[in-house]
Amino acid sequence: MGEIMHTGTASSEDAAETRPEMIWDAWGVPAGHTALPEQIRRLLAGVFGISGEPVTRRAEEDVPLRVSALGAEDLAGLSAVVGAAEVDTGDRARLRHAGGKSTPDLLRRRADGPQDAPDAVVTPADHDEVLRLLAYCADRGIAVVPFGGGTSVVGGLDPIRGRFGSVVAVDLRRLDTLTDVDPVSGTATFGAGLTGPHAERLLARHGLSLGHFPQSFEFASIGGFAATRSSGQASAGYGRFDDMIQRLVVATPTGTLDLGRAPASAAGPDLRELFAGSEGTLGIVTAVTLRVHPVPETVAYQAWSFPDFEAGAAALRRVVQTGAAPTVLRLSDEAETGLNLARAGDIGGSPVGGCLAVTTFEGTADHVAARSAEAYALLAAAGGSPLGEQPARDWEHGRFAAPYLRDALLDVGILCETLETATGWSNLARLKAAVTTALTEALTAQGTPPLIMCHISHTYPTGASLYFTVVAKQADDPIAGWQHAKRAAGDAIVAAGGTITHHHAVGADHRPWLTAEIGEAGVRVLRAVKQAVDPAGILNPGKLIP
Amino acid sequence: MGEIMHTGTASSEDAAETRPEMIWDAWGVPAGHTALPEQIRRLLAGVFGISGEPVTRRAEEDVPLRVSALGAEDLAGLSAVVGAAEVDTGDRARLRHAGGKSTPDLLRRRADGPQDAPDAVVTPADHDEVLRLLAYCADRGIAVVPFGGGTSVVGGLDPIRGRFGSVVAVDLRRLDTLTDVDPVSGTATFGAGLTGPHAERLLARHGLSLGHFPQSFEFASIGGFAATRSSGQASAGYGRFDDMIQRLVVATPTGTLDLGRAPASAAGPDLRELFAGSEGTLGIVTAVTLRVHPVPETVAYQAWSFPDFEAGAAALRRVVQTGAAPTVLRLSDEAETGLNLARAGDIGGSPVGGCLAVTTFEGTADHVAARSAEAYALLAAAGGSPLGEQPARDWEHGRFAAPYLRDALLDVGILCETLETATGWSNLARLKAAVTTALTEALTAQGTPPLIMCHISHTYPTGASLYFTVVAKQADDPIAGWQHAKRAAGDAIVAAGGTITHHHAVGADHRPWLTAEIGEAGVRVLRAVKQAVDPAGILNPGKLIP
Repeated sequence: MGEIMHTGTASSEDAAETRPEMIWDAWGVPAGHTALPEQIRRLLAGVFGISGEPVTRRAEEDVPLRVSALGAEDLAGLSAVVGAAEVDTGDRARLRHAGGKSTPDLLRRRADGPQDAPDAVVTPADHDEVLRLLAYCADRGIAVVPFGGGTSVVGGLDPIRGRFGSVVAVDLRRLDTLTDVDPVSGTATFGAGLTGPHAERLLARHGLSLGHFPQSFEFASIGGFAATRSSGQASAGYGRFDDMIQRLVVATPTGTLDLGRAPASAAGPDLRELFAGSEGTLGIVTAVTLRVHPVPETVAYQAWSFPDFEAGAAALRRVVQTGAAPTVLRLSDEAETGLNLARAGDIGGSPVGGCLAVTTFEGTADHVAARSAEAYALLAAAGGSPLGEQPARDWEHGRFAAPYLRDALLDVGILCETLETATGWSNLARLKAAVTTALTEALTAQGTPPLIMCHISHTYPTGASLYFTVVAKQADDPIAGWQHAKRAAGDAIVAAGGTITHHHAVGADHRPWLTAEIGEAGVRVLRAVKQAVDPAGILNPGKLIP
Repeated sequence: MGEIMHTGTASSEDAAETRPEMIWDAWGVPAGHTALPEQIRRLLAGVFGISGEPVTRRAEEDVPLRVSALGAEDLAGLSAVVGAAEVDTGDRARLRHAGGKSTPDLLRRRADGPQDAPDAVVTPADHDEVLRLLAYCADRGIAVVPFGGGTSVVGGLDPIRGRFGSVVAVDLRRLDTLTDVDPVSGTATFGAGLTGPHAERLLARHGLSLGHFPQSFEFASIGGFAATRSSGQASAGYGRFDDMIQRLVVATPTGTLDLGRAPASAAGPDLRELFAGSEGTLGIVTAVTLRVHPVPETVAYQAWSFPDFEAGAAALRRVVQTGAAPTVLRLSDEAETGLNLARAGDIGGSPVGGCLAVTTFEGTADHVAARSAEAYALLAAAGGSPLGEQPARDWEHGRFAAPYLRDALLDVGILCETLETATGWSNLARLKAAVTTALTEALTAQGTPPLIMCHISHTYPTGASLYFTVVAKQADDPIAGWQHAKRAAGDAIVAAGGTITHHHAVGADHRPWLTAEIGEAGVRVLRAVKQAVDPAGILNPGKLIP
């Protein structure tokens, strides 16, 4: 990692920060939740014929929980590694580590009946404790679910025991230091348990920023970003999370991997890319050295309207292929623009018409001026109508609100879920149509015809992501209903040449399609790596590897 | 790979192109070689006290060659796969596949005594033949050295038999088609055997370019670029070769890997990054889908002088961290600038003084204007003195000439070799000093004090490469002498936090340092992957994996 300045070692001030804990059966924290806005309620009543009266969710203390399967010997053994205070078998902790935040996850928690949960929540202090914990669990046959911010939407945190008698969630919240801040190289080393906001606050003391803002930003963790190949809303400017990784430190049951010695290397296969995206099945990421940048001098905002999605997509393509790279570059389709979903503060309000595109530009004043002028000229030449700054600022202001809105919808009997993919520019329209058709047909056949919205939020010279939001009335069995539609969408994605996931990861939910993605030979390679680093197979059973 | 247009399928016109064959004991083709320029001869005579009279190299037909170890049964078996005409056991073919083009390689060929060589050269027609060839060789216990352009400078092509009785070079020259040209997505699929110039000529018919120009460009192949993580001189603009890879098709003894479905994905580990850089030890790359771009409208050139290397490096850093990314961004140190090595047409002529930096900018006229203005302002503000276009054009003009010059130097008893590394910006000066000291001490102790020159030719927001050129009088045993110095340099690189190779790859020569690079646990992972795809261990024995 070269010469580094230890200017950001952990201080008592850092450690004092308490991570906000998410509600067990919904997204986020109570303060983020509001009643369903009246204009949305009216809209839904018109489209789906629902009453709009929210259900009352059961109280946490009334939820029956599977009894912890861990015996006294294992509890003592785990306590010997991390200390007894860091092995929690209480219902409160276990419920909060019972899985992620996909719509099926939330529907499952709201359903009657007992909840499954890990048998204990273990909170190691550092890399060495994680290493010893994994060795102990491998020896004793205890399955391990690595737990960062708890924001998985693909079943990546399901407490699956596999062939083992018990499973523990290893919560990395205590690995929350920022070290080795190197403002010259523009790198810093992050503990895996740092959340997005905490990491940005620690960096800001050095005048630096990471610039990774996925929708899960407020709760998700650095380790989770690495383990799932997260991609943030500023990916056009700062890259995907995997692009930012300079060095990755991973604890496995058979030892430590410390990967990445230089900004770039030809020293064989890049093993960082094997552990990035390994979703806790090959090891636990404990620290990540990331590329950071100075807090930008200037941010410029510019929104656009395009007559249709095809014209808008062609314009975005022109911008990214020319290299006029904005920091944020997004395009909502007609349906999403019509509902104002891109401007969360004003959903259901008066839409701008056509397809809304949002651009932002960050950096030095000169850089922002040159880039925004170049992009402006390209977007205008490609048929865009400039809408000024405000819609872009509105988008930014509301960008973390959508998951809260989903909970309000679930409460009134509306299903709301998202899925995403990516493909080459020339295949984008075909893939969008294929997924839309598959979802529409599957849900309509169930008697719950959907509203489907889509946007492009991550662009590359060769292609882009497609992010779908699906809204429909809940079926009698809403989980089974959605799973049926999701299968149809996954099959359509694979058949139309898309990737099964651009940034949500594989988890348990996308596992059926991984063989289509990487082939039988690819799966064999993953299994061989798994066997080498986790011969007992304790790490996150039932996820990723078919 | 999405919707693709089959506009570039192989035509008879493509197939008609014959790949230029390199001289067996020197770089390149005869037309590239000239006598040592008089001003260099005088310079060397002054510094090293040599006469400057070139030795006469032995004629090819006088070189004794190890007899082919392949028996009639194996020859028949290989012929059954590819056809008898494509299994060559003649001395001419075997000598031309006897290894790469490092300085020790060339010195070894110029030495008296017998030469080692593969037992046959096999030239399969397509992926399917490669696949069957590997299955056959695995079954029969025949080692395989995948052979692209033959330009390795790290022993990656050494005909090592390992624990097998024979070894064949699998030359991929017949896999030379360009297919699936998709100008919308900016992608195309390249046969592994296409050389740099051949690929560019085929792309140019579509108005496209790849933009990958390593010093080996004229002879090296697409498959070799992928298998070694090559990096070209325009990496600041178009990225490293591994950055360009969208899809990788690899034949292994146990089947085909077809990896990469989208511009970006979160579908688990990125297995492309496991086979990129695998140097023929995990499979043979047969096709690569790469990001391409329109032939640039405009190219702008601007050279600079900086008072010293430190000031120049800080200026380059400012440019790349601001995002004003030129297409080419280079800086020669005082020694390299003093000898005019960056301007190969005028080596030893009147230098510009200080440290020469070269920038070029490619793209649309607007893009080039905006970027070059931004970079100009940053470089000027950082203490650079503009030198106009000419030195940058001179550099470009002579950029593939250095390996030819090396041969002329070897002929007059001068040792000339290069090595390279990379590190974070804050560690660059320390690493440069450490390597320079190690080389100087090792060679001076042998009685052959060196001239050491260095440049930065690949930049990243977080750091840069360092490329060293070493010139000294040849020791009595010049191979052993250089190997001693190279070991000192490798140890110094590792101790000072650099990567053992930024773009030359590992091969046989850097293998002793791979464990320092990726750790024991990383080596275990590589071995597990190797075991899964090549259980017989026939693929490129003695390379990469310790």
